[in-house]
Amino acid sequence: MDLFISQVPGGRKKETVDTLKSGSRDQQVSGIVTTMFATITVIRKAIELNANFIIAHEPTFYNHLDETEWLAEDPIYQFKRRLLEKNGIAVWRNHDYVHSLSKDGVLEGVIEQLGWGEYYQKKSIVMLPETSLGEMISHVKEKMNIPAIRYVGDLSQKVSKILLLPGAIGGKRQIELLMQEKPDVLVCGESPEWETPEYVRNANEMGEKLGMVVLGHSASEEAGSEYLAKWVKTNLIGMPVFHIPSGNSLSIK
Amino acid sequence: MDLFISQVPGGRKKETVDTLKSGSRDQQVSGIVTTMFATITVIRKAIELNANFIIAHEPTFYNHLDETEWLAEDPIYQFKRRLLEKNGIAVWRNHDYVHSLSKDGVLEGVIEQLGWGEYYQKKSIVMLPETSLGEMISHVKEKMNIPAIRYVGDLSQKVSKILLLPGAIGGKRQIELLMQEKPDVLVCGESPEWETPEYVRNANEMGEKLGMVVLGHSASEEAGSEYLAKWVKTNLIGMPVFHIPSGNSLSIK
Repeated sequence: MDLFISQVPGGRKKETVDTLKSGSRDQQVSGIVTTMFATITVIRKAIELNANFIIAHEPTFYNHLDETEWLAEDPIYQFKRRLLEKNGIAVWRNHDYVHSLSKDGVLEGVIEQLGWGEYYQKKSIVMLPETSLGEMISHVKEKMNIPAIRYVGDLSQKVSKILLLPGAIGGKRQIELLMQEKPDVLVCGESPEWETPEYVRNANEMGEKLGMVVLGHSASEEAGSEYLAKWVKTNLIGMPVFHIPSGNSLSIK
Repeated sequence: MDLFISQVPGGRKKETVDTLKSGSRDQQVSGIVTTMFATITVIRKAIELNANFIIAHEPTFYNHLDETEWLAEDPIYQFKRRLLEKNGIAVWRNHDYVHSLSKDGVLEGVIEQLGWGEYYQKKSIVMLPETSLGEMISHVKEKMNIPAIRYVGDLSQKVSKILLLPGAIGGKRQIELLMQEKPDVLVCGESPEWETPEYVRNANEMGEKLGMVVLGHSASEEAGSEYLAKWVKTNLIGMPVFHIPSGNSLSIK
C-alpha cells in the first residue's frame, strides 16, 4: 500500500475511501488479487489461489464509505465478514489513489482495452477516425465483452470526439464536461437517469448530435484492476498476483 | 397546485423540490399535461394541444433541486428555457406531494398498470401467486412496455413476495427494506451499481434466493403521471388534461 501511495503525486491523502476493509497492515501477504468488486465469488477464488490480499476498486459493503454499523445484524453482511476473517483475507480499496496517478490508472487500462491508445489526446478525450455511434457501440461491446449497452442518441450520427468518463463521477460533473468539451459522444459508467441522460435527450430533441453510451459501472472500470495487477507485477517482483474480473452484477432479459 | 396540496396529509411542505420551474402562480391555465419528464418533445406536444401547464414528476434541468446557475451559459438549457417562456408554459414538479398522498399516487398507478391490485398487501409489498423470476420479468416487460430489463438473480428462482420501490429511493434505504421485509425480489427504478446490485449479488453468492429487477426510473414511475391525469379529471371538472409519457431516455443496443 505504502509503495503504491508513494507513487501518487501528492502522496498520502487525509480524506480517502481507500482504507483497509478487513485484515491489518501488519499481515504477511501470500499473494494479491485485483478486482473491481470483492464479491463473495472473488473472495472464494482468492482463497483457492492462496492469495490473502484483495485490492478492490469499489466498496466492499454497499456504500461509498463502507459504513457497516447499519448492516451489523444482516446475515449477508455477516457471511461476507466471517468469510474474510476466517480465511485471513485483507481487502484494501484502491480507488482515489489509482485515479490520482500522474496518468489515471483506470483510464490507462480502459484506453488499452478499447485499442484507442493512438487516438488518445488528453485526459478523458479520444479523437477517433470518423465512425457512427452504432459502429462505435459495436466496437465497445466486443472489446469490453458487454452483451448489451444502454445509450441515448441517433445510432447513425457521426462520432469522432469522445469524452471518456469511466465510473460514476456524477451527473453535474459529466454535464459540465459536456459543456466544456463539446464531444460527439459521452462514454461513461453510469449516471442517475434524471441527470445526464435527460440532458443528452434534450440536446437531441433540439437538433444537436450528441450521443451518450452507458457501459455499466463494472465494465467501465474493470480494466483499471487489470492495470493494477500489472503494476504489482512490475513493482513487487516475485509477488503472486492475479486479476479476477468481478463482472457485471446486472444481467439483461 | 393548492387543491392538490390540500389533499396531502400534512399539507404544504416547508422543504420540497415541488416548485414552479417556469411560469407563475397567477397565469390562467388553458390545459394540463402530466408526464414524468418535461422533455422538449413533451413541451412541444403541450404547445400543440394548447395546454400551458405541465405537471412533471422529475426535474426539468438535470438535477434534483433544479439549480440552474451552473447551466446559465449552456445552449441546451437556454433553448429549453426560451421554449417554455416564449410559449408561456408553466412547469410544476409534483414529486414529494404525489408520493405523500394517503395512498402514494405513484405506487397506486404502478400497481394498476401491473394488474397487481388484488395482490397488494401494504405499502411496497405485493404477494403474487407463486411464479418464477423469469416469468415475473416477462409479465412486467409486457405490462410496462419495456424492451429489456436489467436484473440480478436466478431466473428460475421462485417469486411470491415482491418489494416494489419505484424510482430511486437510494441504495441504503432499498437494502434496509430488503433486510426488514425479506422479499423474494426487489423491483425498483434504479440504484447505483455499487449499492443494491452488489448486496443482492452477494446474497445469491452465499446461497440466498433473492432477485432484483431494475425497471429504469422512467418506466417505474410513468404510471404515477397517468394517475395524476386521472386526479385532474376528477378534481378539476372540465379542465382539458392529457397524460403524455416521456418514455425512456435510454435505449438498448
